[in-house]
Amino acid sequence: MPRLSPTSGAPRRGRPGYDQEAVLRCAVDLFNRRGYDGTSVGDLAGELGLTKSAIYHHFPSKSDLLQAALNEALDGLSEVIDTAVASENGARETARERLESAVRQSVAVLVEHLPAVTLLLRVHGNSDVELDALRRRRAIDAKLADLVRAAADEGSLRSDIPPELTSRLLFGMVNSLVEWYRPNGRHDTAAIADAVTRIAFEGLALRGR
Amino acid sequence: MPRLSPTSGAPRRGRPGYDQEAVLRCAVDLFNRRGYDGTSVGDLAGELGLTKSAIYHHFPSKSDLLQAALNEALDGLSEVIDTAVASENGARETARERLESAVRQSVAVLVEHLPAVTLLLRVHGNSDVELDALRRRRAIDAKLADLVRAAADEGSLRSDIPPELTSRLLFGMVNSLVEWYRPNGRHDTAAIADAVTRIAFEGLALRGR
Repeated sequence: MPRLSPTSGAPRRGRPGYDQEAVLRCAVDLFNRRGYDGTSVGDLAGELGLTKSAIYHHFPSKSDLLQAALNEALDGLSEVIDTAVASENGARETARERLESAVRQSVAVLVEHLPAVTLLLRVHGNSDVELDALRRRRAIDAKLADLVRAAADEGSLRSDIPPELTSRLLFGMVNSLVEWYRPNGRHDTAAIADAVTRIAFEGLALRGR
Repeated sequence: MPRLSPTSGAPRRGRPGYDQEAVLRCAVDLFNRRGYDGTSVGDLAGELGLTKSAIYHHFPSKSDLLQAALNEALDGLSEVIDTAVASENGARETARERLESAVRQSVAVLVEHLPAVTLLLRVHGNSDVELDALRRRRAIDAKLADLVRAAADEGSLRSDIPPELTSRLLFGMVNSLVEWYRPNGRHDTAAIADAVTRIAFEGLALRGR
């Protein structure tokens, strides 16, 4: 786990302009551009204009940087799906409403944590940290598939497509954002979330045709 | 361009078990697993049990291997979209039918050329070969967006989502196959193509709800 910055909670003045968060942002950017293996702590220090020991002050190892980045993405996505599943108990929403909410909130997490999610979606399990991330990702995928199944079971979703295939394609569409979404681009988060949910639930064809 | 194998057209006996095609398959696999930069021609030779000069006999450089792999994916996808656009002249099909055909055929290309398309979708433009591939990919994306626009214009597709956004999401769903499709898995190509087109055109919600 990354150490907490000693200045956290107070204005950060320890190293002008660079605190733990900035180190992490820069590391994620380098990992995405050059690959994790192709990035050294020395590269990161050079990019930030810091010494390596200044980096190690915030993150004991390169692997801790990767773990922090992957956890950022996974924590965001887990919260979305756990919230959607939890609202089942309230029983005020149908499974389909909860699924739609999970889709919308996933889009928001992807936009808000785009570099971290991009990194997560490229992880292939080459280390314990990556294997751990893949396990957490699979657990999220399984909960999403359960939600699709619940919506099919309650009769609000078509049941002629296997739920796990629906889930793959639905969140494949959501995850494609990491390939083409650009901050400050033409479409804001709400427009994209609307487009995804309209296509997924209502379809592209005009009704009655 | 890779040289044609001197034995092409005749039974390939030059190097027992390994011809140009096998070298390319192995290279694509290594590029996908270790990254292009992380793979040397020496690694490839080692993996195949060949000398480096045996590799160079088929492909003059590592960059030629990358180009051959990316062209394999791009040629397949270009053919799909060019066929869909060309049938416009016959005027027997609506734009929506052509779009649906482009989606179905794209799924087939992804399944048939999965490793090459996986490599293509991970290219970031780090060399002239990659920049060239990105240009070809953008040209394909533009034609697909035009087809979506034509379908909206003819009135067979909803027009409340910007066509380029629809196109991104629709083919984002198709392209997600490289993340989760496994040969000999539970679903065959036709089942996946059916699922994609049903979700995309008809939507997941049961009609009338």
